[in-house]
Amino acid sequence: MKLASLVFVTSNLGKLREAQDVLGVTLEHQALDLVEIQSLELKEIVRDKARRAYERVRRPVLVEDTSLELAGMRGFPGPLIRWMLVSVGPAGIARLAHAFADPRAIVRCMACAFDGHDEVFGSGVIRGMIAETPRGRRGFGWDSVFIPDGGGGRTYGEMTPAEKNAISHRRRALEALKEALAESPFSSR
Amino acid sequence: MKLASLVFVTSNLGKLREAQDVLGVTLEHQALDLVEIQSLELKEIVRDKARRAYERVRRPVLVEDTSLELAGMRGFPGPLIRWMLVSVGPAGIARLAHAFADPRAIVRCMACAFDGHDEVFGSGVIRGMIAETPRGRRGFGWDSVFIPDGGGGRTYGEMTPAEKNAISHRRRALEALKEALAESPFSSR
Repeated sequence: MKLASLVFVTSNLGKLREAQDVLGVTLEHQALDLVEIQSLELKEIVRDKARRAYERVRRPVLVEDTSLELAGMRGFPGPLIRWMLVSVGPAGIARLAHAFADPRAIVRCMACAFDGHDEVFGSGVIRGMIAETPRGRRGFGWDSVFIPDGGGGRTYGEMTPAEKNAISHRRRALEALKEALAESPFSSR
Repeated sequence: MKLASLVFVTSNLGKLREAQDVLGVTLEHQALDLVEIQSLELKEIVRDKARRAYERVRRPVLVEDTSLELAGMRGFPGPLIRWMLVSVGPAGIARLAHAFADPRAIVRCMACAFDGHDEVFGSGVIRGMIAETPRGRRGFGWDSVFIPDGGGGRTYGEMTPAEKNAISHRRRALEALKEALAESPFSSR
């Protein structure tokens, strides 16, 4: 599998933009909103999602999923963060994280390429903390409340796209995937 | 479909016990831990779960799922309560609900019978609130923190099985399902 031949399946255009910026390629894209299975294990969700994407697209696919683990809630909601965001928004996430007196958080991204036979994963992890209230209008999702370590205390939402991408969990996952694809015995297909 | 001919598919023996007590029948049972899809819509999850159960069992199945909606979190986690419970336990749920200054909660149960062609639903809703700390050692899951309206201020965990079943969301869902099955044009199959 070659990275440039993958179809990125995501309904989130923010993620598409970041992936293309990070990889420096234009990715083919399909905006399908795939069903995801319930789990706290990101890899399990992404593996299943890659199969669903392949069944729909019938060509080698790229999918990813992101997890936001709140230390005060022992890792919850993890990959279920999407639904917490829908329900309470970034301000609610901030309030929750601080209700538990431990605002640390871990963000993970896992990307998976799947061609119907072989699967290749790449993951990226960033540690940081949740802001007391949302800050910054850039980015998407919960970017306004996540303060990554090494970002000078700013939230992702306060960074330019270039600044965010220099740090981000998604960049790390996609770069790890790119490397894994290059090393994979299937890379010549 | 006849209720007594359904195979109840659940990995939770507490739910099996309650269903049998409530319906007054012995149900055939398979302890499969079925994958559930991510959603905040209980019916969507239960419909998909019924199909997965049927694919495994190949006989008319009964499945159910339960949702705990925290008013302070605008309904979150809903059907994802299982994962919040795994992560923070009943005490964590209590702490969360009270962090938002609105401890009201709604519990829903949805049961679904599916025979490969027809599906019949029954749902039960109970309003109440979340206790400040867990109380009572009976029941299972989050029973120790849910105080149903009309239960004299006690949590499900402080009630005998008979007391809980007289009120419970699961009894209401199963009775509604029983009625729906009796009225269904497919009841003679």
